[in-house]
Amino acid sequence: MSPFLEKLRHASRVRRSLLCVGLDPDPALLPPSLLHGRAVPDAVVAFNRAIIEATADLVCAFKPNLAFYEALGRRAFEVLAETLAAIPRDVVTIADAKRGDIGNTARMYARALFETFGCDAVTANPYLGRDALEPFLAYEDRGVFILCRTSNPGAADVQDLHVVSAGEAPRPLYEHVAVLVNRWNVRGNCGLVVGATYPRELRRVREICPGMPILIPGIGAQAGDLEAAVQAGVDASGELAVINASRSVLYASRGEDFAAAARSAAQALRDAINAARRGAGTWQ
Amino acid sequence: MSPFLEKLRHASRVRRSLLCVGLDPDPALLPPSLLHGRAVPDAVVAFNRAIIEATADLVCAFKPNLAFYEALGRRAFEVLAETLAAIPRDVVTIADAKRGDIGNTARMYARALFETFGCDAVTANPYLGRDALEPFLAYEDRGVFILCRTSNPGAADVQDLHVVSAGEAPRPLYEHVAVLVNRWNVRGNCGLVVGATYPRELRRVREICPGMPILIPGIGAQAGDLEAAVQAGVDASGELAVINASRSVLYASRGEDFAAAARSAAQALRDAINAARRGAGTWQ
Repeated sequence: MSPFLEKLRHASRVRRSLLCVGLDPDPALLPPSLLHGRAVPDAVVAFNRAIIEATADLVCAFKPNLAFYEALGRRAFEVLAETLAAIPRDVVTIADAKRGDIGNTARMYARALFETFGCDAVTANPYLGRDALEPFLAYEDRGVFILCRTSNPGAADVQDLHVVSAGEAPRPLYEHVAVLVNRWNVRGNCGLVVGATYPRELRRVREICPGMPILIPGIGAQAGDLEAAVQAGVDASGELAVINASRSVLYASRGEDFAAAARSAAQALRDAINAARRGAGTWQ
Repeated sequence: MSPFLEKLRHASRVRRSLLCVGLDPDPALLPPSLLHGRAVPDAVVAFNRAIIEATADLVCAFKPNLAFYEALGRRAFEVLAETLAAIPRDVVTIADAKRGDIGNTARMYARALFETFGCDAVTANPYLGRDALEPFLAYEDRGVFILCRTSNPGAADVQDLHVVSAGEAPRPLYEHVAVLVNRWNVRGNCGLVVGATYPRELRRVREICPGMPILIPGIGAQAGDLEAAVQAGVDASGELAVINASRSVLYASRGEDFAAAARSAAQALRDAINAARRGAGTWQ
């Protein structure tokens, strides 16, 4: 088993949790008390630290979404670095960057996220093909979650297009991507991203890739059916699904109790996820 | 005509140039004299300023590639801001970020690149569908170059898959993306990215989208055939192609004459591009 898979499995076993908290700090939604007398980037660091401290024993992973850092401007990556530094080392960090670019540039993105920031995993886009993913995959001890079927309403525009390949029946592009990623997974460090909002498609992807970790966003604010998503997404041992919630945890309260409220929300989600995998009879 | 197209056309007419210089500063390739006694991020700013000053009258656009900034770490976005501030206001700025994410996150990326950094255009990935591009397209005065057929060897893995859609003959995914983008282009601010390394595919995309700007990377270091790419990529008036060169201009010399060498390289490229469009008989 690849070192990344080991780390992910260990983190989820020790904490009995498949929950990932997405660190998507939106200045417009931060508790006003945190913003008082602080520059926005400093308030974001304080917020992230409080959220991490309140939830780190309930999650297998944290997933900073790079867009929310870049929107902070000049101090973007300073805030990202401070945030990552606050995450306990045995919790998985996933840089949600959805990068996709050609060799030379992909190497720079990989260096930024894996070396400069030391993240355990990234999200990446399959549209450019295997050689664009290779600079990420070459880091054998890290994970690469490749977009397969995303959680947004417009996902079907491209991902559901039916593609034909020699001697096979037409199938949706997202299924073909799952088949390709299986083939590209020579180091055992590939994963897939499939939205919780599409449990039928998620089940199909799990069939195609029985041993791959799947990052599943779209519960909580995006209102995917949690139970259906968990049961469709876990592997045969009720593991290797990373169920992400962002807004429903981060902004559970905007009062001074925001960290305690985030903790309660995370705990409720972790428990609901565990109930669902118990219900499926694959995990106890 | 959309304000972005106006600006692009104006910049290329005033400077008689379709050349875009990609600002991909790689610390390992900078002139050693610039690095002497300076922190790397400061050397990168000095390098970019010198390149911009030496080439700004020869180009229609500059294209900072975000990967190269992110790899600088904490000061990444400070360097990007200083770089953008050095670009004359009538030259187009294209943030080469290849972003693709769902609504909430895409809005943050759009805010970062269009508002915080004030870029004229971005590059984006079509895999997530129309609603993921909409937050960028909603900025009516900016441009969005959507990946269609990229310049890398592995582009075919996904982009050449044949798509079957009701009542139509199967065609490669990249052509289908061009058709979709035509449909999504309700505000006239869409563009496409097609690599110079695939002139046949470029010609096909130009047929599908006769009035759309096409960003064409892959000349110079990637060794696409310049003449074939220009003739396949321009519109009926010999315009609306943005031909990008990065390494062949930036690193024309690593000596103290690096800026003058970059200028010569840019001038030669601009002239070769103009010769190619004159040769096609569409422009004079």
